[in-house]
Amino acid sequence: MGLSFSEIYPEVNARLTFEIENVLFSEKSPYQKIVVMETGQFGRILIIDDFVMLTERDEFVYHEMIVHVPLFVHPQPQNILIIGGGDGGTARECLKHPEVEHIDLVDIDEMVTQACLQYIPSVANQILSKKVKCHFQDGVEYVKHVAQKYDIVIVDSTDPVSVGEGLFSKEFYQDCFKLLNDDGILINQSESPSWQPGEVQRIAGKLKSVFPAVRYYQAHIPTYPSGHWIFGFASKKYDPLKNFRKNHYQHLNLSLKYYNADIHHGAFALPTFTRELIDDA
Amino acid sequence: MGLSFSEIYPEVNARLTFEIENVLFSEKSPYQKIVVMETGQFGRILIIDDFVMLTERDEFVYHEMIVHVPLFVHPQPQNILIIGGGDGGTARECLKHPEVEHIDLVDIDEMVTQACLQYIPSVANQILSKKVKCHFQDGVEYVKHVAQKYDIVIVDSTDPVSVGEGLFSKEFYQDCFKLLNDDGILINQSESPSWQPGEVQRIAGKLKSVFPAVRYYQAHIPTYPSGHWIFGFASKKYDPLKNFRKNHYQHLNLSLKYYNADIHHGAFALPTFTRELIDDA
Repeated sequence: MGLSFSEIYPEVNARLTFEIENVLFSEKSPYQKIVVMETGQFGRILIIDDFVMLTERDEFVYHEMIVHVPLFVHPQPQNILIIGGGDGGTARECLKHPEVEHIDLVDIDEMVTQACLQYIPSVANQILSKKVKCHFQDGVEYVKHVAQKYDIVIVDSTDPVSVGEGLFSKEFYQDCFKLLNDDGILINQSESPSWQPGEVQRIAGKLKSVFPAVRYYQAHIPTYPSGHWIFGFASKKYDPLKNFRKNHYQHLNLSLKYYNADIHHGAFALPTFTRELIDDA
Repeated sequence: MGLSFSEIYPEVNARLTFEIENVLFSEKSPYQKIVVMETGQFGRILIIDDFVMLTERDEFVYHEMIVHVPLFVHPQPQNILIIGGGDGGTARECLKHPEVEHIDLVDIDEMVTQACLQYIPSVANQILSKKVKCHFQDGVEYVKHVAQKYDIVIVDSTDPVSVGEGLFSKEFYQDCFKLLNDDGILINQSESPSWQPGEVQRIAGKLKSVFPAVRYYQAHIPTYPSGHWIFGFASKKYDPLKNFRKNHYQHLNLSLKYYNADIHHGAFALPTFTRELIDDA
């Protein structure tokens, strides 16, 4: 195979290995190790601390699903807070909605953004939009002190280890609850029910203890562990299915590759083992 | 990692590697190389010609989804033909339906069944039921000559290479069409739209040229390439959603781990890129 990169999946004693054509960027920031590599089949891939964050081949699944599900539910998503998401993909999808007036993007590590702007511009370049303000600081601290209120908070974090750990705490969710408007929605990436069931359950328990209504939806993301990934939809008011703005979705007529009106409903249909994990949390 | 097994994914220049505790069975039959290994996290795994056929950890997804979707649509699934499926998992799920009177299971390679009966009995042992008749012969030949008619044909094949290739041909689908009753349903495993889009499209094109109504549904199967797997639902009469027997599903109240009434609907909600692959086939 020649040059390769392997992500270790310690929960299942397995690993996924990619053939690598070239290493484009490899630096240690004060927070983490950041690497961008060129592959033949996955395009460029972003690796942080030896975990795959995105590949050009399938990043559309994650970014479309973390954004369009809440943005086609909230009736007026004007002010968005993205915690993490320094690669720019989540901001890019938000900006497809003309109602979005302002995005605060809070990522602790500016080097991620710089690396992506230089090497993965198809994901990152919308971060330069005038509607996006980047705050390179700790998201946990930001949500404690910010005075601004938001319609939607998207927690686009790394895994619940190291730098990302505080973004999975009950205190963090409580702070997010406070800065959301009375009809606000929080979305968070919530790991793999197939290979990280304990983690999924811990996250769900904390989210459910803070928000009155929590639902989960899933997507196929082949380059994340197991490919079976879920997102939490934590809401003060709206139901993700009853309040789906289907007419608005049809009217906007976005050019997307994964998300559509059927998927909006279908993604909330969870396998029994996943539903039980969450119900028992 | 010590002893390991890697499945190569040539379509994407990647591979998935499992830590192996022990090799329990390893033989060459006249048709293929059959290996059963013990792992810590995936339980026992069946490998044929270096492809993962099943793991004890997640075989329930594949077997529940290939069986319960059609069996909760057809109003009287009495006679079932399984092509392939020598491991016994598909037969096991069919037998959970009391309406099933007889199953013909046609697998070319008796050694697969023998190895699974000995080493993976939780999957295989229902194959010994009096309702199941095993025919160890070529499925392509069987469907050409059998006089029996069936309510449902389930094509539980290996990949469309080597031994499995004939089970993806138009002629094979035509023969299956003929041996189905006038309200019959054919299901086939149809590979990964994420990592095998060309294969998915070729299969869909052939199936659509033979059956009047073809729909696809998906499932999360972490140990198959990409984890994103689809099944073809090819029907002479029934629509998988309109004719879903929800009351019967609730009445039977099976103890399942993946399939449920929400999943029955949700699995047919396909990502846009998958829908386009199939629509353009």
